[in-house]
Order: sequence, then C-alpha cells, then structure tokens
Amino acid sequence: MKKNLKIGVFGFGCVGQGLYHVLQETQGIKAEIKKFCVKNKNKERILDDSFFTFDKDEILNDPDIDVVVELIDDANAAFEIVKTALQNGKAVVTANKKMLAEHLEEIYDLQQKYNKPVLYEGSVCGAIPIIRNLEEYYDNDTLSSIEGIFNGSTNYILTKVFEERKSYEDSLRKAQELGFAESDPSLDVKGFDAKYKLVIAIAHTFGVFVKPEDIINLGIDKINDADLKYARENNLGIKLVVRAFKLNGHVYGLVAPQFIESNNMLASVRNEYNAVIVQGAFSERQLFVGKGAGSYPTGSAVLSDISALTYDYRYEYKKRTQGTKLVFSNKATVEVLVSFSQKAQINISDFEEFKGGYQGKESQYMHGLVALEKLKVWAAVDGISIILTPEFVLVPSKREAALA
Amino acid sequence: MKKNLKIGVFGFGCVGQGLYHVLQETQGIKAEIKKFCVKNKNKERILDDSFFTFDKDEILNDPDIDVVVELIDDANAAFEIVKTALQNGKAVVTANKKMLAEHLEEIYDLQQKYNKPVLYEGSVCGAIPIIRNLEEYYDNDTLSSIEGIFNGSTNYILTKVFEERKSYEDSLRKAQELGFAESDPSLDVKGFDAKYKLVIAIAHTFGVFVKPEDIINLGIDKINDADLKYARENNLGIKLVVRAFKLNGHVYGLVAPQFIESNNMLASVRNEYNAVIVQGAFSERQLFVGKGAGSYPTGSAVLSDISALTYDYRYEYKKRTQGTKLVFSNKATVEVLVSFSQKAQINISDFEEFKGGYQGKESQYMHGLVALEKLKVWAAVDGISIILTPEFVLVPSKREAALA
Repeated sequence: MKKNLKIGVFGFGCVGQGLYHVLQETQGIKAEIKKFCVKNKNKERILDDSFFTFDKDEILNDPDIDVVVELIDDANAAFEIVKTALQNGKAVVTANKKMLAEHLEEIYDLQQKYNKPVLYEGSVCGAIPIIRNLEEYYDNDTLSSIEGIFNGSTNYILTKVFEERKSYEDSLRKAQELGFAESDPSLDVKGFDAKYKLVIAIAHTFGVFVKPEDIINLGIDKINDADLKYARENNLGIKLVVRAFKLNGHVYGLVAPQFIESNNMLASVRNEYNAVIVQGAFSERQLFVGKGAGSYPTGSAVLSDISALTYDYRYEYKKRTQGTKLVFSNKATVEVLVSFSQKAQINISDFEEFKGGYQGKESQYMHGLVALEKLKVWAAVDGISIILTPEFVLVPSKREAALA
Repeated sequence: MKKNLKIGVFGFGCVGQGLYHVLQETQGIKAEIKKFCVKNKNKERILDDSFFTFDKDEILNDPDIDVVVELIDDANAAFEIVKTALQNGKAVVTANKKMLAEHLEEIYDLQQKYNKPVLYEGSVCGAIPIIRNLEEYYDNDTLSSIEGIFNGSTNYILTKVFEERKSYEDSLRKAQELGFAESDPSLDVKGFDAKYKLVIAIAHTFGVFVKPEDIINLGIDKINDADLKYARENNLGIKLVVRAFKLNGHVYGLVAPQFIESNNMLASVRNEYNAVIVQGAFSERQLFVGKGAGSYPTGSAVLSDISALTYDYRYEYKKRTQGTKLVFSNKATVEVLVSFSQKAQINISDFEEFKGGYQGKESQYMHGLVALEKLKVWAAVDGISIILTPEFVLVPSKREAALA
C-alpha cells in the first residue's frame, strides 16, 4: 500500500536542509531525495555535488521523480514550478505561503485538472498541523471562527517589548538586527506574512478563496510609545491577531494588532510561538500552539506531507464541496483605539460611532467604531497607529446585513 | 468513495444525546442512527420509542448496521459489546477509556483478526484530536514525550482553589456537589481517569501497550492546606499532570500532582479545559488545548470517528509496527515534596536522596528523590500528600540503566 517515493527538491536553504536531516533520521517513511535544484553555483554545500543541479528541468522532466518539494523564496518562480510539476504528473509539497495565497484557486483547479495533489501543511504556522486538522478532523463540525498568532517574528518582538519593558522602536530595530525577520522584513511587521497564511486557512475553514489584496492587514510597525503606555496602564498586552469568522452568510477576516487581556488564551503565547484557535459549534474552542517557523518545525511539516503522499493523501477541500456558499466581505466596522501624532489628520466624523478621545501633550487618541475601508486608508498614512480593543467588536454594515 | 453508514448506538446518556444532535445538524456526513440500545425501560426519552431497543442483539445481529457506537458506563459490558461487534463484522466507535485501557492489546488483536477498525478519539481529552494527530501527523517524527492535563474535573477544582483562594477541602466537596465528577468520583480525584487516557496515549505515542495497574497514579485527594500555603508562598500553582516519555530504551510514565510555575505552558490551562503537550525531535513542543468532556465536545469527537469510517479510516498503530521495541518501566526515582501529618510515618531513609525538610506546628514536609514504588506505597496511606517539584526530575535506577 505504501509507495516508495522519489523526491526532487527546489531550494537548499534552512527548510531544505532541515528536511534533509529530518528524513535522514526518520524510520519508516519510504521516500528518498534524488536531487536538489539550487541557484547559486558558487556556494559551499554540506552534501556531495551529485545531489545538486542548477537546471530545473532535471527535476521537472525526470520521470523517475514522483514528488516535487518546492522551498524557494521567489513566489512567481515557485508557482511556475508547481504548475509544471502538476502538468508533468508529479505531486507537489510546498511551504510557500505567498505563492499559495496569490494562486490558491488556480492551484485548486490545477489539482482537479491533472489529478495530482498539492500539500502545504508547512505554509501555515509551521509545525502546527492546522490544515490537516481543518480538512480531516473538523470536516463534520460547523466551524464558526479561526483566529490566532500566525507570525513568530512579530510575536517575538511584542513579547520582548512587554516583558523587558523596552521602548518599542528599539525592540523592533533589535529584532530586525538579530535576523528574525524574513528577507523582506516588511512582510512580517506589516502583517503580510500573517495575511497569506490567513488566506490559506480561510479556504480550509470556510471553503472560500479570497485574494490577499481583499483582506486588510495592519502591522505592528506603527505602534508607538503612547500605545504601550496605554496598554501598561490598563494591564493589557498587544498581539498581532489574525482572524476570520462566519456571520450572516459572510466571511469577515483581517489581520490587526489587538490589546489582549491577561486571561485571553493568546496572552500566554510567547516569543516565536504561533497559536491557532478554532471554534466549532460542537467541538467548542480548541487551541493549538507550536513553533511557527524554523528549519526543523517546517521541515517536519513538509515531511509529514511527504509521508501522507505515500498513502495517496490529498486535500479534499471539503468545506468547499459540502458547505453553503459563503462570500468574503469587508463591509463592516470594527472597534479600535487610534493614536496619532499632531500632523496626522483624524476627525470624529471619520468614526461610524465615536466613543471618546484623549489629547495630551505628547499623544492623542480616539476610540470608536471605524469602517474597515477607512482603516485601509489610515494604514497607508504615517503616524497613525490602529489597535483593536480587547473585546473584539465587528458590526456588519447595514446595507450588507440587509442583503444577507 | 464515501459510504452511507447505518449506526447502532449503545447508551443514550449525555454523549449519546450530544451525538444525536450533532449528527442532526451536520451536513455532508453520510451516516444515520438506526437504533439506540438502552437499559432503563421506564425513562422518558426525547425521541420516538421506535428508536430504542432493550435487546443488545437487535443491534449486534442486525446485518444492516455497519457501525456500533458504544457509549455506556460499564467497562466490562462495553468490552463484550466491542468484541461481539467486531466478530460480527462491524466497525466500532467508543469513548470508554476505562474499557480501552484495560483491554487495549486485546482490542488491537481483535482488529487484526476480524479486519474491522475500532476508533476512539473521544476517549482521550474529548474534542482534542490527539489520537488522530499521533497516528497521522507525527508518524514520521521521533516523539520523545507526551504530557498534559487529561482530566477536566480535577483541573476545575484546582483552578477554583487557586483563583478563589478557597480551602482545598471545601472546593473538593463543592465540585463534587456540582456533579462535576464521574458517577464514581474517585476515578477523577484519585487520577484513575487520567491514567486510563495515558495508557491509550502511550500506545499511540510509543507503540507500547501498558496495563493500567502498572502505571502509578497519585490523585489530588490528599492535597492539604500546607501544600496550598507552600504553593502560594512560592508563587506556584498545582496541576494534576499526566506524562510519559522515552529514556534509554524505556518508557516511563505516571500521573501525579505537580507544582507548576507561572510560565509553564500548562499554567494557563484553566477550569475544565484539557491540554496535551507533544514533544517531537523535529516538530519541537506542540500544545493542544480544548474541552476534555461534555456531551458536545465528546459527541463531536465520536462523530469525527464516524466520519472517518466513511473513508475506511483505521488506526495503523504505526509506532508499534515501525518503532524500536520500547519497554515500560517504573524503576526510577522522582523528585517530590511530601507533606504529612504527625501520625504518618515517613523517614529520611525512605528517600533515595534527601534534600531537606521542614517541621512546623501544624505541618511538616520533606523534599527529595523517592523511588516510584515507594510512592505507590505512600499513596495507599492516609495523611500523606505527594507533589512533584516544578522542574520534573526522574532518574532511572542504576540497575535498570545498566540493562538499557
């Protein structure tokens, strides 16, 4: 029943090397790496030269190779690899969340067309087996929401800021110096990395394909010392929270920093750990916590996908095939605290419902319900920091509610 | 590919009714309940009489029924039902941890013999999908330990004691009055319920079948006010912790109360929630938190098993078939704090390594390394409270280490 798989791997960075070691030390999985395709011809590598090629076709056109594992940075090149691999009758394993988020519906269609699976457990929260559980374990439960901490770098920064009572700007700079961020650090701190993962999670939670540009992402890069002062005075933390949920036939979702009370399940998720909270009608609230990145945790998730392929496993996208038709929407207001410098222009009339404000010598803030589309506008302006209130409040717009 | 399953259910208690409702409200699962077998002929029930039978053979001998769901209290009767169902070519779903723990190896053999699956996700930590993840997701990872909070009632009691600063005896009594405990409350407070779940978890984590009587279980029923005072003075909590881990070719495991520091992952698991921490060589530490009991969480786990049967899923017990041969052992010492009343006889010579003691007017305690077998003796004596130290320390006995 089990197959003996031959694997071609694109990329020999931290995850590729992690995968190699994990595979070496694991018993009972019938798979071996035949070739790594790499870009840089002059790099010293820990394996013999015969393991490497610089020509992608040497893997993609090799009839001997059953599985292509794609672990490169470049999302466009990655998508071309995935497409060609499927066309050539190969199964694919990838952890490239940007590529997946941008092409998820196409990848779904390609899997149907060529009848070959694409697995990507490593793309969302590293070692946490969230996609597999959404697909398999919750397939009979009526899921109402998914939320969590999907980015380890920003969680590390926020943990340090609060536990070591450092200035925000210093901590952010230091974390970037330590190399915690991705090759493009704005992907992490502006919330794009977390958003890509949310796009993938939404597909497996609600059966809806959303384009990344349709989801609003606020990062942690605008947080200022006034926010920290407010948090400390009110015994709150701040976390970059990812969430999506079902309401009146729509799916709402966003990525935004949020004030967090100490008894919130997410409060104790520290440093580079990720967390996912799934809420089902019957299973109630479930929390998964684990390392979201790193060579071994991600390598382990990739290997788990390879292992699943030896049993002919594939995602069935059950929520899509079984569920009622849900539509993603941004027509809603959320409750936020907005702090801003003198030069930024924010008026009470910008709020759908204004709840109060404060103006001090060095800082000012306003509190109330704001339309998601307005948040998107503010996010593009320097000097405006937007943080969700501890009790998350989202109110669908009246017009939208009438349609629902 | 999906089958249309017909189900016969034994028991119509809280989980049975939960299952009925969950199944009613769920789309996409091709299964229906044909009959419930119940004991009490005079009880009013919410469904039509035609749904019920009092004769077990009406389910067990019905060729139309594919799946027997066993949800009764009596472990011996439950095992007979499971055995007969398998003999008669039916798949089985059960959440009866006592029955499973006592007969796990036989049930494994019966599955091979009759080539029919037994699934039991609901038996360990309710809605947390731990068995499925151990079987499927970690099958390629080298697991080194599993630990957690496997009993909701005792966790509820301990949470109340610490958060409401109540007397221990009062809280225990009150929780029992609230009906939080099982029909036999000693199963919860003495750690038997948690131990049964540990037996099942060990089989799927390490591929080892252990008899429940071979695992030492200390409960929370001996905890006294001196322990609470010690915990509060040292800013510690107390949790009933279940754990098993691999060391030198052996598996060690026990259930015991433990002092817990505030930064321990288990510290924030409150009230009736359960938690499982799995440690893998590559996936590193993963935490799962969810409701461990109740009609809907357990009903949801049972339904997830039924759903898996529509895809011909079965446990493969991969750790058993793939892994190296591990042996369960109690030949070790652990570090504990023992508090006891004047009449209990405890001597420094009872310790393998004595680390200190304290004698006050009302309480006395000793601290050091004690053999597991000695703990078993003390557990049977009134007035002795044994609590593991915050940093769990277990040292294999020298003779055992030499054999390993």
